[in-house]
Amino acid sequence: MSTPLPPGVSAEQMNEALARMRKVVGKEWVFVEQDKVPYHDPYPVNNDASANKAWAGVAPASTEQVQAIVQIANEFSIPLWPVSRGKNFAYGGAAPVLSGSVVVDMSRMNRILEVNEDFGYALVEPGVSYFDLYNYIQEKGLKLWIDVPDPGWGSVMGNALDHGIGYTPYGDHFAMQCGMEVVLGNGELVRTGMGALPGNNTWQLFKYGFGPYVDGIFSQSNFGIVTKMGIWLMPEPAGYRPYMITFEREEDIEEVVEILRPLRVGQVIQNGATVRSLLLDAAITESKSKYTKSREPIPDSLSRKIMADQEIGMWNFCGALYGPPPVMDTLWTAIRDSFAKVKGAKFYFEEDRKRRPDILIHRGETMKGIPKLTEFNFLNWNGGGGHVGFSPVSPITGKDAIKQYYMIKDRVREYGFDYMGLMAIGWRDLHHVTVIVYDKNDPDERRRMNEVFRIMVKEAAAEGYGEYRTHIQYMDDIAGTYNWNDNALMKMNQSIKDALDPNGILAPGKSGIWPKHLREDGKS
Amino acid sequence: MSTPLPPGVSAEQMNEALARMRKVVGKEWVFVEQDKVPYHDPYPVNNDASANKAWAGVAPASTEQVQAIVQIANEFSIPLWPVSRGKNFAYGGAAPVLSGSVVVDMSRMNRILEVNEDFGYALVEPGVSYFDLYNYIQEKGLKLWIDVPDPGWGSVMGNALDHGIGYTPYGDHFAMQCGMEVVLGNGELVRTGMGALPGNNTWQLFKYGFGPYVDGIFSQSNFGIVTKMGIWLMPEPAGYRPYMITFEREEDIEEVVEILRPLRVGQVIQNGATVRSLLLDAAITESKSKYTKSREPIPDSLSRKIMADQEIGMWNFCGALYGPPPVMDTLWTAIRDSFAKVKGAKFYFEEDRKRRPDILIHRGETMKGIPKLTEFNFLNWNGGGGHVGFSPVSPITGKDAIKQYYMIKDRVREYGFDYMGLMAIGWRDLHHVTVIVYDKNDPDERRRMNEVFRIMVKEAAAEGYGEYRTHIQYMDDIAGTYNWNDNALMKMNQSIKDALDPNGILAPGKSGIWPKHLREDGKS
Repeated sequence: MSTPLPPGVSAEQMNEALARMRKVVGKEWVFVEQDKVPYHDPYPVNNDASANKAWAGVAPASTEQVQAIVQIANEFSIPLWPVSRGKNFAYGGAAPVLSGSVVVDMSRMNRILEVNEDFGYALVEPGVSYFDLYNYIQEKGLKLWIDVPDPGWGSVMGNALDHGIGYTPYGDHFAMQCGMEVVLGNGELVRTGMGALPGNNTWQLFKYGFGPYVDGIFSQSNFGIVTKMGIWLMPEPAGYRPYMITFEREEDIEEVVEILRPLRVGQVIQNGATVRSLLLDAAITESKSKYTKSREPIPDSLSRKIMADQEIGMWNFCGALYGPPPVMDTLWTAIRDSFAKVKGAKFYFEEDRKRRPDILIHRGETMKGIPKLTEFNFLNWNGGGGHVGFSPVSPITGKDAIKQYYMIKDRVREYGFDYMGLMAIGWRDLHHVTVIVYDKNDPDERRRMNEVFRIMVKEAAAEGYGEYRTHIQYMDDIAGTYNWNDNALMKMNQSIKDALDPNGILAPGKSGIWPKHLREDGKS
Repeated sequence: MSTPLPPGVSAEQMNEALARMRKVVGKEWVFVEQDKVPYHDPYPVNNDASANKAWAGVAPASTEQVQAIVQIANEFSIPLWPVSRGKNFAYGGAAPVLSGSVVVDMSRMNRILEVNEDFGYALVEPGVSYFDLYNYIQEKGLKLWIDVPDPGWGSVMGNALDHGIGYTPYGDHFAMQCGMEVVLGNGELVRTGMGALPGNNTWQLFKYGFGPYVDGIFSQSNFGIVTKMGIWLMPEPAGYRPYMITFEREEDIEEVVEILRPLRVGQVIQNGATVRSLLLDAAITESKSKYTKSREPIPDSLSRKIMADQEIGMWNFCGALYGPPPVMDTLWTAIRDSFAKVKGAKFYFEEDRKRRPDILIHRGETMKGIPKLTEFNFLNWNGGGGHVGFSPVSPITGKDAIKQYYMIKDRVREYGFDYMGLMAIGWRDLHHVTVIVYDKNDPDERRRMNEVFRIMVKEAAAEGYGEYRTHIQYMDDIAGTYNWNDNALMKMNQSIKDALDPNGILAPGKSGIWPKHLREDGKS
């Protein structure tokens, strides 16, 4: 199956553009032979082998090279698909929405430009991974923590720009962003916030600068390529204590989430804590084959056995306490007393899990910002390793939690998959992320996954739930659910797109936003 | 002095447009006779009587009326200047940048659409003041606090959109904003975030929605008229204890700010606390005439007398503790021990200030979100009542604090004014706000104020300090200092402006952003 050229681009034009790009970055940094282009979706979600295929990749080493690439793309109308490190595996990896796009691989731009211990921030390029930043801080002995999502190999910048989350008090990554440098679609280089003031001393200290606060429009968008970003880091707290509370029955999720809301809104729970379902946690340390030979969804009878084996619950809440011991003690008393109401709730600190320590050690490290890849153990649950995240946002209420749980669990099981979900508590919402683990090499599993995903998007939207983030294949579907007042928000985004990227070369289709010439093809 | 018509608009066109607007809002809600137009700058900063003059005002009662007004303005190329309540007195009040503009007075749209106690948020229209929201919460007995800036008569929405600050842990108002409804310059009605998903249940709970996070571009901008805004409210804490620490010498500011930084970055200081200068605090309870008959700046010798009289310092730090008593006790120990290093520091809770209780009672109320107008007492300091805020942003370092202090104090005193300043600590920056109090009826004081202001903008920028907010007269000056890379950020803002408001009718000149047809006049 050959990769199609982008719409309106001839092979000659593409070749000339790539030749020009080679002059910019050096020929070893343009990747063209199709089987060597490493920018495919690691877990394709459907059976269309021509979908989401990059024509080539180009890896710039500097902002100037990014500007030159954008300039060339404008001249030849080449669609570019920028990725920071391309590790967003549950959502498409480095692959583009539009086949034929040239991936702009920013992973060579991996300088940590500054880490400031006094103020708690870093200024990074797109290629800096969580591992890189963590190791840098450890080597220098700085008393700072980073906040990591589950896998630590991704880009600090890319994750924040995709509204990713982690599990310390700094878990809302985009909220901790401060100051950017961006190459716009038209090739202009902009610095936001205080960065626009030459010689400033507050680019990473104060977000808003003067005039419109624009940083947000470069998140989950295709208006520019961010080349530098500031991110706030948490000072090492005076104390730290992770804990786990397990709940026995699936219906407990209703009461648990009702208890969580006031604790979180009142900041008694200080961090982006999570409630995880039995099988998501079970899959961190064991594979399904330990418990059954069947590929069918785990029946309830087996759930009890897994719970007993792993000393976990149908739901497992992991949080952490941060601060001086008297502060931690006070908060813990409130948390413990609140959850003690739930029948069968069991409370654990690390020292209470001698027989099955792994899960709380793992979460305990994540909630203090230690990057790892442990979470990917769940890919071995079924074999086949594919996974996609379905991520609706919900109010923090018991009613919504249990409704979403049954809606999604029933659908994924109907289509032959286990429910493996987590509810991450944000400032005032739940991110309900269900990981669908499927065999990426099995066309039937892919077909079923794709089918149930599209059904769930529609069913969730009908109940008022929208996804906060998605796989490249579903961006149009999900953008289509945010259609209030005849798609007014999308129309506005399109206007901004056309203004900042008049030739529509940046990431066509990202978040459902298509440039003018591709909208006229009926894409929007 | 007659108000000029807006550029390119004839008297006939203006009259016809206003006639059309009368049909929309009712004739009693269009204000035209010039002496009755209440939208002047209450404290003019220069002697140009034709500057910042509104031609008329129109007061819509609904979003539909706002859309209709925008539609008419587009037809007749009438510049509109939207204000929420127009109480931004230190920065121009309700007056427009461009003379001849029609003020869109949103104060009739003053519905509190929802206050949610469980989740801690309000959904408000632009005309809702802090007093309105506070009173609503008190009447319903809800266990929520609001966060207020110094004067409580302003708009909750307008202040957040202008990046205003308050003094509780929710002091960064724009950070607490969640979800908007906006009428764009082109007349389209947009809802942001989850508001774009019909039937959603998380518009005020989750900021980012799906795709670009756009809310920020409607702050300090002229891209749209915000008609609804969500704002997060703080749950009533388990305990509250305001405190004051006074410092004797002006040079103490260096050590004080060095001590503040780690306490704030580490969240030991939980709120938007402030260090205020002697005279700003002194002016809350007394006027200058009590201490001297001269209008000259207060000499150092007199400072000692005022300090003793009012039992305050050259610098006065007011903060507050929030939470259960053991948490407050732990934080207070760390704060007290840190500041005990400063020679002559004196520590006060409310019960320690029996002789001069006023100032800490006042701050104590503000830091728990009680709206008031007490702060305006400082307008009586000199007589004449004019005031303007000069508001550079600084890193939280002693070196920067003392440098800014001397730079600004020396300049304002050179021009005949007292230094009345505060340093408000944000997440990682200081807002150094100097209030210049002058006699608004004295042309010479206005001239001197205007002259020193423009000098200070330039001198601050040369040292890397930029203003976060400003009076309508200085928007071009300050935008001009954010000129990195040949004004790249401004050019981008202009592109967005032209895309969302193609006829350039919304607030021309706001934050230095001029629409295309006025830029071609050499405005940019």
